[in-house]
Amino acid sequence: MSRIITLTTDFGTASPYVAVMKGVILTINAAACIHDLSHAIPPQNIGHAAHFLSGSVPYFPTGTIHVCVVDPGVGTERAALLAEVGGQFLIAPDNGCLSLALDQLRKPIVRRLAEPKFWRADVSATFHGRDIFAPVAAHLSLGVKPAEFGPVMHEWVKSEPPKPRREKNSIVGEVTFIDEFGNLITNISAEIVHKPPQDLRLGAVQRKRFRWVRSYAEAEPGTLIALISSDGWLEIAVVNGSAARRLRARVGMPVTIAFVR
Amino acid sequence: MSRIITLTTDFGTASPYVAVMKGVILTINAAACIHDLSHAIPPQNIGHAAHFLSGSVPYFPTGTIHVCVVDPGVGTERAALLAEVGGQFLIAPDNGCLSLALDQLRKPIVRRLAEPKFWRADVSATFHGRDIFAPVAAHLSLGVKPAEFGPVMHEWVKSEPPKPRREKNSIVGEVTFIDEFGNLITNISAEIVHKPPQDLRLGAVQRKRFRWVRSYAEAEPGTLIALISSDGWLEIAVVNGSAARRLRARVGMPVTIAFVR
Amino acid sequence: MSRIITLTTDFGTASPYVAVMKGVILTINAAACIHDLSHAIPPQNIGHAAHFLSGSVPYFPTGTIHVCVVDPGVGTERAALLAEVGGQFLIAPDNGCLSLALDQLRKPIVRRLAEPKFWRADVSATFHGRDIFAPVAAHLSLGVKPAEFGPVMHEWVKSEPPKPRREKNSIVGEVTFIDEFGNLITNISAEIVHKPPQDLRLGAVQRKRFRWVRSYAEAEPGTLIALISSDGWLEIAVVNGSAARRLRARVGMPVTIAFVR
Repeated sequence: MSRIITLTTDFGTASPYVAVMKGVILTINAAACIHDLSHAIPPQNIGHAAHFLSGSVPYFPTGTIHVCVVDPGVGTERAALLAEVGGQFLIAPDNGCLSLALDQLRKPIVRRLAEPKFWRADVSATFHGRDIFAPVAAHLSLGVKPAEFGPVMHEWVKSEPPKPRREKNSIVGEVTFIDEFGNLITNISAEIVHKPPQDLRLGAVQRKRFRWVRSYAEAEPGTLIALISSDGWLEIAVVNGSAARRLRARVGMPVTIAFVR
Repeated sequence: MSRIITLTTDFGTASPYVAVMKGVILTINAAACIHDLSHAIPPQNIGHAAHFLSGSVPYFPTGTIHVCVVDPGVGTERAALLAEVGGQFLIAPDNGCLSLALDQLRKPIVRRLAEPKFWRADVSATFHGRDIFAPVAAHLSLGVKPAEFGPVMHEWVKSEPPKPRREKNSIVGEVTFIDEFGNLITNISAEIVHKPPQDLRLGAVQRKRFRWVRSYAEAEPGTLIALISSDGWLEIAVVNGSAARRLRARVGMPVTIAFVR
Repeated sequence: MSRIITLTTDFGTASPYVAVMKGVILTINAAACIHDLSHAIPPQNIGHAAHFLSGSVPYFPTGTIHVCVVDPGVGTERAALLAEVGGQFLIAPDNGCLSLALDQLRKPIVRRLAEPKFWRADVSATFHGRDIFAPVAAHLSLGVKPAEFGPVMHEWVKSEPPKPRREKNSIVGEVTFIDEFGNLITNISAEIVHKPPQDLRLGAVQRKRFRWVRSYAEAEPGTLIALISSDGWLEIAVVNGSAARRLRARVGMPVTIAFVR
């Protein structure tokens, strides 16, 4: 039984929605330790949330309860999930936002939230963060057993991450995430970048001048660099600048690296 | 006696002001549980703060201490308040930012902060968040009785929310809040929207194409919709988009709904 | 032994980096009380971080552990520091971001983090926040003695704040920080502003119309004002507006005040 509850939303903090969820949790369990992970997920961006959670959840201790509310389908028939994975708990709408985190960790047990006694009395059609997800997290933190919240499901919405394509002397992947420094994270993993690439293309444009480095400060400010990210992915960056802005990159843009011409 | 202290400010977090308030609180009560509600209230926007607090406070447990510092009049003769309402405490300048929350809850007891022994020794003319509001919250969380902070007041600054006007077959209200999705919250309550409206005007412009829905995902992305918000107000939104941007809306803009032409 | 750990970064919160640091800390010490100070330090802006910390740290209680990760030199030979000062602890890269806070407080004992047993097993070249700073903070919060983390250093990177220049009837300083209201904080201290200045220049431009006030609300909205900030510095502001925007100010811009022409 843990008292650590994390929150990840696309609500921003200028509106009362995050505050409301905190109030609901603390009303049920005043001893809950609430940690903000992010309220800056871009609105309705399930892919961003999925990447965010898969990058964050593995670092948390056993027993942590993560709540993610990025929920464009609120009020429809989409299910609400409680997943148990690696000793942690994830609570979120069934829209793919948990998919990467569940793939990454072992043997998830996924349940459909089906027991209204753990919800607020009047469930709205537009704010399940308040009415379902927050109260479920709070009750779970009080020691209610996962099985009490609903039955096990065997299918849930998956957002399969694209796999890079290996060609003769090149690898074609794509940008999967752009961080707040403007660094571009790709789906090309360190294992398949067996040696420094000689060629880098983003979209259709070849980037003639880039440096392959181990850390940002190995090149001069303003230099376009490629390196292995702290999570083991090919990353494209500009030293002390924004690769996203310089290269007008966006998530989904193809990235090609070649080893010999 | 509670240890939960919430913070709501217009300070942003790139400046040290929020950090300073946390330090002041923790220096007085190292066991205080500080929860950020918002530091993204638009600068000096008392109306936004009032709406934010009235939407958040009711969800918190008995004993919670809320501190709100949106304080354009700092250093003038405006009073500083400690209100006790519904078992919770609100600490803020007397400028209207507590008004809606106090109206909404029952029988507020409002005091004027008048006892400098609970303040920092040197009270500045520009940062009462640090010098008065944070230390008062911390001392309150240690169990100091409300009456010790100052005398009861019977008048405080009120910001009466506008009331919608009912005409023959229509209701004329206004936009009272714009959330970070760009959804427009109005002062037209669910009770008076007794049936789906046929007509929607924002400002002087009739919006011919809108759909009346129960939840966002009932219409296609990009559709202009009207619905009842999770707090029971008429809300105007664009599915997976921003109604504020699409309609160039701003707080105070008139909203008219009509039921038959 | 304290459980209060604060975090100051330039990571923003749309990326998983802050969440990852929280997870790492809580995995080592589930009872740690983590407080966000800022994740909105402008990217790689060591000067901003230094000002932020020097303005925040003095308000925290003995035993607080502050972690600052603004680290453009990550992966290079730059040292990683644990400083003990005024009974508090500061953990950060040795790049100047601690400099002002260390100058300000008494007798800092500064150590070089040199003991990998308190780090994550695989230290990346790009994310020491996760691999070194967060785990060191967590172990320190568990009661590990500072001396166990590494040897004392006597030199560290200093970012000397500029000193204002006193001329016959004037003082020439500069803008050292711009807060989120757009207020300009300078390096001209209250002590040397012995009487209200008659003349104010920003850059080369004389600002003919400004008012010398004690608090923001003493002048009408929109008025250019000069006053003593809550931390004791000459501050230039626009009532309910942004001096930074109005005056196109930036950090480092010269500020001249004159007392008689």
